[in-house]
Amino acid sequence: MFGQVGRSYPLVGDRIQAEIMRLARERPVSRSEMTEALGVSRSKISLEVGRLIEGGLLVEDGLAESDGGRRSSLLRIPRSAGLIAAVDLGASSIDVALADLGGELVAHTGMPADIKEGPRAVLGRAKELLSGLREDQGSEPRDILAIGVGVPGPVEHASGLLNSPPLMPGWDRFPIRDAFADEYAAPVFVDNDVNIMALGEHRGGVGKGVDNVLFVKIGTGIGGGIIADGRLYRGTQGCAGDIGHICADPEGPVCACGNRGCLEAMAGAPAIAAKAERYAREGVSPILKEILDRRQELGAREVGEAAGLGDYHALEIIKESGKLVGRVLATLVSTLNPSLIIIGGGVANIGHALLGEIRSTVYRRSLPLATRNLPVVLSELGGMAGVTGASVLAAEGVLQTTRVG
Amino acid sequence: MFGQVGRSYPLVGDRIQAEIMRLARERPVSRSEMTEALGVSRSKISLEVGRLIEGGLLVEDGLAESDGGRRSSLLRIPRSAGLIAAVDLGASSIDVALADLGGELVAHTGMPADIKEGPRAVLGRAKELLSGLREDQGSEPRDILAIGVGVPGPVEHASGLLNSPPLMPGWDRFPIRDAFADEYAAPVFVDNDVNIMALGEHRGGVGKGVDNVLFVKIGTGIGGGIIADGRLYRGTQGCAGDIGHICADPEGPVCACGNRGCLEAMAGAPAIAAKAERYAREGVSPILKEILDRRQELGAREVGEAAGLGDYHALEIIKESGKLVGRVLATLVSTLNPSLIIIGGGVANIGHALLGEIRSTVYRRSLPLATRNLPVVLSELGGMAGVTGASVLAAEGVLQTTRVG
Repeated sequence: MFGQVGRSYPLVGDRIQAEIMRLARERPVSRSEMTEALGVSRSKISLEVGRLIEGGLLVEDGLAESDGGRRSSLLRIPRSAGLIAAVDLGASSIDVALADLGGELVAHTGMPADIKEGPRAVLGRAKELLSGLREDQGSEPRDILAIGVGVPGPVEHASGLLNSPPLMPGWDRFPIRDAFADEYAAPVFVDNDVNIMALGEHRGGVGKGVDNVLFVKIGTGIGGGIIADGRLYRGTQGCAGDIGHICADPEGPVCACGNRGCLEAMAGAPAIAAKAERYAREGVSPILKEILDRRQELGAREVGEAAGLGDYHALEIIKESGKLVGRVLATLVSTLNPSLIIIGGGVANIGHALLGEIRSTVYRRSLPLATRNLPVVLSELGGMAGVTGASVLAAEGVLQTTRVG
Repeated sequence: MFGQVGRSYPLVGDRIQAEIMRLARERPVSRSEMTEALGVSRSKISLEVGRLIEGGLLVEDGLAESDGGRRSSLLRIPRSAGLIAAVDLGASSIDVALADLGGELVAHTGMPADIKEGPRAVLGRAKELLSGLREDQGSEPRDILAIGVGVPGPVEHASGLLNSPPLMPGWDRFPIRDAFADEYAAPVFVDNDVNIMALGEHRGGVGKGVDNVLFVKIGTGIGGGIIADGRLYRGTQGCAGDIGHICADPEGPVCACGNRGCLEAMAGAPAIAAKAERYAREGVSPILKEILDRRQELGAREVGEAAGLGDYHALEIIKESGKLVGRVLATLVSTLNPSLIIIGGGVANIGHALLGEIRSTVYRRSLPLATRNLPVVLSELGGMAGVTGASVLAAEGVLQTTRVG
């Protein structure tokens, strides 16, 4: 598909080039706009834009709106610049996508997979999916400029290694980057799955253009991703936003981590399912019992269905989760003062009752100034948030001046 | 004192100049180090350094350590570049200092003052203190390059205006910057007092060189300042770190804000004093009673003294505060994953028991990964944290390319 030989790294020669490319990833942009936005001289911008055009990373395309003077041409990133590979590993799924360097998703696929099978098996399958997508596009390994990988555990940013992830045997400090090296020369960027979902929503979803965003994933686990002043904030060990083990109730049940009343243990999908199953078995809720008998399983999705059918107990279960999540989020609102809270993950979709309860608890418990204009909304990208974010991670990573990966 | 005429603003011509000055504020630095650190060409660095020397903002001074080749000269910011004024307004005090542009404090003074007297009275007194300091140094208003002001309430970053501060009549959206305009041409930068304390500790105290820092002030109020990836994080309305009204106990007493069990209402200086007074009046603690009878007042400091004398009840009061603060900090550790927690403010100094209780609660309640290397220490700058941070705020602010203030 692409004519040029494989790229050499780093792709860009200096920091101004990197910043020009970052601007061009947002939208086609003129040299004057670059000069304005980057605070360096027009001659420096012209010099570096010329070099980027020469290297095939920018093309001139169209004219900017006139503001009185001569209309200046717009620069954009051509599809021929190359592709970004995005891999999103969940606890029970693999999602893989290709995007262009400008940020547009080109192709996507996925399959179920248990992260507990270990890195060799799971990464092997991810690479097969990636090869398939790539071949469908008629492109070669050398067309891949960078690879972004999301994993469901804390990642040490500098090394790209998982840092003592719970319930992921074999993954602790496994060299994920190296697993791609036999096929791809491209650098590999690894981050936590909730972080990349936050990044995805921030650059390509409902959080676009919003500087301070708190993304909360509610699924089997509960986690947060923090966008602070427009940048992903990871914390020192890569576990910022790891809110699943915040104490939601000091009198609550003992969690797997040893503490009492952790948010995740009380409000996540397994807690919702366990309560529903109890109500079903005890005959308290005939609707839940009927669903359990028919499907032989009762998860968060089924509880949402029952609530939709008007089941009081299902609704109570959902509201209880919402209240617990909302209380913890109120604390995070006081701490982070975000402009937007985005709720994602599997449990997010079980119905409006959950979102409503989270909202009202956050508003009730936080200071008025911090919630004056604080929308609490559902994820826009849903299941695509992860691969979108992984492609952003990789594209922004490879457009740095120093090689990582 | 200074020979040159008044400066024009912005002080620096472009972003690279601003970044060179920022490096030089940390330590004397060579052109090669600048090239390395800023990721732009050597010729660009030489050009801009030349312009900064011409403008009197840098001087050549000494030679860098040799790494084999020709030894290169070091650049530093001369005292003659000008002065920074720092004003720290507390609930009951004014502190004013002068620093040089390189960051060294030159002079300092302070006085008691009630913030409730309103902006005209309080800012008037601050300006008098500043004039006094300035005249002692033999310098003119035009020698002041920038003014940094800390205030005890949330500040809207872009406008520098206080945003609905509680218990500060007359201050809401008062134009603090303009109050200095009759005497100083310099731009004025305003921020929250806890934010500037965090900035002070991060640039000139125990948090120097640490990227992710949580500063917690425990005084009449309780507040936090967040350094994230080396930068002060303020949040959307300027109230990030406003942790005083996080719910510490859902069954706790009703707070002035209307919610129950706010951290500030349960663990701050007034709560400590109220408990101590009750123990004294009820005769439960003879030592507290003796102190109250002798001094006619019983504050956090006196409770610390009583604990030091071995009074069991005083110690229990302190430990209770520590436990409540520690619980909230455990939540913040999960959220922010900092490398360092710094405890400051008046209550911080009442003895080791408080710090010990905070530490053990944080460690017990947080995930092991986040606390593997997490020191919880006392403020190094103490009462000087505010003016130190205000001088950093102003110096870094005036070294931007766009005029603010």
